[in-house]
Amino acid sequence: MDLLNLISNVDNEMVKAGTTIFTEGSIADCMYVVVEGSVNIMVGDEVFDTAGIGDMFGEMAMIDARPRSATAVANVDSKLAKIDERMFLFMIQQTPYFAQHVMRVMAERLRNMNKLNER
Amino acid sequence: MDLLNLISNVDNEMVKAGTTIFTEGSIADCMYVVVEGSVNIMVGDEVFDTAGIGDMFGEMAMIDARPRSATAVANVDSKLAKIDERMFLFMIQQTPYFAQHVMRVMAERLRNMNKLNER
Repeated sequence: MDLLNLISNVDNEMVKAGTTIFTEGSIADCMYVVVEGSVNIMVGDEVFDTAGIGDMFGEMAMIDARPRSATAVANVDSKLAKIDERMFLFMIQQTPYFAQHVMRVMAERLRNMNKLNER
Repeated sequence: MDLLNLISNVDNEMVKAGTTIFTEGSIADCMYVVVEGSVNIMVGDEVFDTAGIGDMFGEMAMIDARPRSATAVANVDSKLAKIDERMFLFMIQQTPYFAQHVMRVMAERLRNMNKLNER
């Protein structure tokens, strides 16, 4: 599924390389989709995933309404679409494959996390 | 959401305490819901989650069709409902909150995994 089509009407925001978009433990009210650039998803000092163009991140807090589970830092100058909870729930309910897409992303993160754990 | 209501028509299977239900790395064709008893979800020797009555496990392989990411071992004598891929997809598409429930479960596992990583 192409997330970029789904969110083509969402306002974008620019972030400079090295910008911390959110920090582990902070309160959350949105998720993001990378429109241009890339973003590292980190736990402590360890990068366990990188979100590239068309990838989402920060979706965990939309699902369980708890503080951020990881820190997100822009790798390069990036353009991000910000999705709030209302829009997230609308997409889950209205777009047949969006929920499955979110689950696949989460499954991949869990597998990456397992690999970190086993090292 | 009460998973047990949703799967009340699914055949159950009994497993004895200590039984390995599946092993990390093995090929997967189903997920499970605990009807009675409890099941430990392990990565290596470490228990990172325990599925109790009404909890699902093994859903990752339904989502991304890859080998098992963890090992599942019955804690006590348990009764399990086995959900195959066809039924999983049907539930995702037909039951409005099932997809959100699966996402919440995965979010909790990711958070538990993060905690293990940080130790």
